[in-house]
Amino acid sequence: MNSQASTPIWIYDTTLRDGSQREGLSLSLEDKLRIAKELDQLGIPFIEGGWPGANPKDVQFFWQIKEEPLTQAEVVAFCSTRRPNIAAADDPMLQAILAAGTRWVTLFGKSWDLHVTEGLQTTLEENLAMIKDSIEYLRSQGRRVIYDAEHWFDGYKQNPDYALQTLDAALQAGAEWLVLCDTNGGTLPHEIGQIVREVREALKVESSNPQPLLGIHTHNDSDTAIANALAGVLEGVRMVQGTINGYGERCGNANLCSLIPNLQLKLGYRCIQDEQLAKLTQASRLISEVVNLAPDDHAPFVGRSAFAHKGGIHVSAVERNPLTYEHIEPETIGNQRRIVISDQSGLSNVLAKARTFGHELNKKDPACRQILERLKGLESEGYQFEAAEASFDLLMREALGYRQQFFELKGFQVHCDMLQSISGDYSNALATIKVTVNGKDILEAAEGNGPVSALDAALRKALQNFYPEIAQFQLTDYKVRILDGGAGTSAKTRVLIESSNGQKRWTTVGVSPNILEASYQAVVEGIEYGLLLQSSGKPESRLPVSESSKASVQ
Amino acid sequence: MNSQASTPIWIYDTTLRDGSQREGLSLSLEDKLRIAKELDQLGIPFIEGGWPGANPKDVQFFWQIKEEPLTQAEVVAFCSTRRPNIAAADDPMLQAILAAGTRWVTLFGKSWDLHVTEGLQTTLEENLAMIKDSIEYLRSQGRRVIYDAEHWFDGYKQNPDYALQTLDAALQAGAEWLVLCDTNGGTLPHEIGQIVREVREALKVESSNPQPLLGIHTHNDSDTAIANALAGVLEGVRMVQGTINGYGERCGNANLCSLIPNLQLKLGYRCIQDEQLAKLTQASRLISEVVNLAPDDHAPFVGRSAFAHKGGIHVSAVERNPLTYEHIEPETIGNQRRIVISDQSGLSNVLAKARTFGHELNKKDPACRQILERLKGLESEGYQFEAAEASFDLLMREALGYRQQFFELKGFQVHCDMLQSISGDYSNALATIKVTVNGKDILEAAEGNGPVSALDAALRKALQNFYPEIAQFQLTDYKVRILDGGAGTSAKTRVLIESSNGQKRWTTVGVSPNILEASYQAVVEGIEYGLLLQSSGKPESRLPVSESSKASVQ
Repeated sequence: MNSQASTPIWIYDTTLRDGSQREGLSLSLEDKLRIAKELDQLGIPFIEGGWPGANPKDVQFFWQIKEEPLTQAEVVAFCSTRRPNIAAADDPMLQAILAAGTRWVTLFGKSWDLHVTEGLQTTLEENLAMIKDSIEYLRSQGRRVIYDAEHWFDGYKQNPDYALQTLDAALQAGAEWLVLCDTNGGTLPHEIGQIVREVREALKVESSNPQPLLGIHTHNDSDTAIANALAGVLEGVRMVQGTINGYGERCGNANLCSLIPNLQLKLGYRCIQDEQLAKLTQASRLISEVVNLAPDDHAPFVGRSAFAHKGGIHVSAVERNPLTYEHIEPETIGNQRRIVISDQSGLSNVLAKARTFGHELNKKDPACRQILERLKGLESEGYQFEAAEASFDLLMREALGYRQQFFELKGFQVHCDMLQSISGDYSNALATIKVTVNGKDILEAAEGNGPVSALDAALRKALQNFYPEIAQFQLTDYKVRILDGGAGTSAKTRVLIESSNGQKRWTTVGVSPNILEASYQAVVEGIEYGLLLQSSGKPESRLPVSESSKASVQ
Repeated sequence: MNSQASTPIWIYDTTLRDGSQREGLSLSLEDKLRIAKELDQLGIPFIEGGWPGANPKDVQFFWQIKEEPLTQAEVVAFCSTRRPNIAAADDPMLQAILAAGTRWVTLFGKSWDLHVTEGLQTTLEENLAMIKDSIEYLRSQGRRVIYDAEHWFDGYKQNPDYALQTLDAALQAGAEWLVLCDTNGGTLPHEIGQIVREVREALKVESSNPQPLLGIHTHNDSDTAIANALAGVLEGVRMVQGTINGYGERCGNANLCSLIPNLQLKLGYRCIQDEQLAKLTQASRLISEVVNLAPDDHAPFVGRSAFAHKGGIHVSAVERNPLTYEHIEPETIGNQRRIVISDQSGLSNVLAKARTFGHELNKKDPACRQILERLKGLESEGYQFEAAEASFDLLMREALGYRQQFFELKGFQVHCDMLQSISGDYSNALATIKVTVNGKDILEAAEGNGPVSALDAALRKALQNFYPEIAQFQLTDYKVRILDGGAGTSAKTRVLIESSNGQKRWTTVGVSPNILEASYQAVVEGIEYGLLLQSSGKPESRLPVSESSKASVQ
């Protein structure tokens, strides 16, 4: 953590280009601008914006980013070498990249002889000329050039001499960075280390050379993208390319959310400022919101479960000395420790958990044991509070005597009629619901494309006059698990519902042999918890409502 | 790929123990048995079944597995060393592990001095005695012992001398394997390599020693679990512990679905047989269905997108010479290339699949393309036939013109009334169903403790006079997955139902935004398939019913 303390590593983000190759991910122009801003604030020095010759949206992006320039980051345009047998100045792709108006340009070229002869269908000599001409032309137009050596590792393994000639061509033509790409993602870390060592030797890039020259670009097809990039860095590479959350084609690119903390916290290199590193988790989640993909709860470093602890003895130990159970301090990357509630948990888990919700409990407080008993009872019925923290908070509030009652349930009826609809497209569900709010009975009915959405609609209709903020609540996820699957269709059902008010997300749980009742329980608690967050002023506040309301409920 | 061709690596699966620590994953006894069977078929030599001293469900698992023994795998029971200051024979945990009746036992002990003094609150000497006594006691009871050195790498970094003493104690007491665990997952590959080298030196485990001795257990907190395990293997480790799909606490364990192909296809070690490796993708997906977690489409090797190709030139190049764009041949692990823009792929898959059901198809048969089109259409609607082979068989029979019609559906109505029942235990669902059998309309109604069981009961009632064998059919599993979770309660629902006739099990699928309709589809196909199996004489037969019935249906 100290020998490299002064060595910088340049992070190069390609979320907007390579990341958007991920199947199922598509970015609007606005998405791209929003992500670029976030990366800039995170302190990423190079942001690859796109391939303006290949994609009209990317042309617009570069125009737009000139209108609203970033504070620090260099926005980089990406393109290939000129086509075979034409002058660089005549290649429309290279014109498009100049029109993007960036200071830096990343040019990729072929390293693998087979890709030259079979893919480009040209000669090995012409490929060297394409690399050299393109870079010289871009340099003559005042651009600084990063050269991406595509299929580097596979090419080098097949024909090291030719592969090295391509790098040399790029270097002689004026490229400032040579980036070794594991395009197919098949190389393993020990091979990367070995090859980078050989490349440095061949290029006579001495460790003592003050100018950083080599970069690395890895993919996760072998599940070793991070280790591959680290292996390169340990052999002297000084630029690392990757994407936020590891988005990318096939199995994705090297995940910057894992690379940056490994480099900075474990190996002691300098990537971004400490205050920026402390926003990494937030950046990861925000970008997953922008691209509309659920965040991976189990992602290293930034995942919701990355610092989650189970089990009684373990929990008291982690509170005494976190570093015996955590590889880094979660706060350094803006994540947090979480005590998971499960039927293995003891009293100290409950206390720790209660504290995270702002409930100050004492081990001797009878409410504490009462919460634990209630928890165990419910879990043996099939409830699970690991993922349903909002329901657990409500349970604690009830035991502590200050659960607010926003409405009282009287029941529901659901009717589905498919007697006409077996052929397919017609399906109809009707729900009737009865609740009491402020002493007034409300009966409402609503339709839906299934029984649960009908129930949800009826409940919202019944409450909306009293709590107009309900209009902002959204059900953002709905999960169903059959508990004792062996009991067939009579099995108990557990439903988890995630709700959002646009700022915060929370999850509630319901259990019943009747899937409609289980769903109903979770929907109802989801709305109740949303109202609770709203009523306590700011959604972050988890504090008990007030002493007076506590007294009145008791 | 050849120098290690004869070197075996023992794979040790801990999906059922460490894997089940994943937040949000909970396994029933049936789930555990099903997964164990799948791992056995995959050729995994060691399957850690659970911790019988700590968990009543795990006690049952070991009893049950004795009733239905696996074909090859060793099922291993897991537990900790004896408690401080008591005799090993007096520790109830060790009694529980003996009661599990396995040949092999994995015992874990503390390697890190801090965990001994702070966590166990005992002396360093007593910890050594705990390791030694526990192993000697288990050995005296005829057990073979794997010793898991918990927190090995962190402990070794802090106090290498003491850490080595713990390994020595285990070795002297008769442990056959010493497994180095990176329990917190914070170690990087270059550190792993270095430390394993030092350990081998210290234990004088020579490379030439024919007896394999060291194992490795890694976690993914640094996003390097795979590379860490590989670094150990490259330094002479011969057992690798991990879980299917990388399930596990926090960020998960080393993913066996990535480790096995890396070891076997890239490094040339011998883990499982080639035919077993070709079922890896299927095992990964089946287990994700059993634990009811969506498979990760972007998972290395086994993910749906792992060999997906986009773009024209790329695609023709990949078809000419796949290894220029793919790091391994997807078929070797049972995955397949997917050309995102073209529907050319899949035909040979359909043919192969059809053959497994006894349908001999010819590529030029128009029914073949028809099956493919129908399959693609249904999959884009959310159907999935990987786990629902009975539904796929029915689909093929339909395309081939010999799906038997046992009954015709007219529709259903479901009514749930909870207006009196919110307090808890009373819940009532009523279903009415209309079917035509042998030209006769049948209208039946039935109650259930939920809408799906009411539907199931009504359908059986309607059919039982015509097909009395229905009385033997049982619904043995019922799983629900919400497809587009972001759509909240309006999301599409996929239901998988497993049925049994006491001899054979089969799975059917239904999809609809209305969970009742999706369940109904799957229930109906489940009963239809059971009747089909019954009518064709022996349940094993998957052959088309007969030429005459084929003709009559056409």
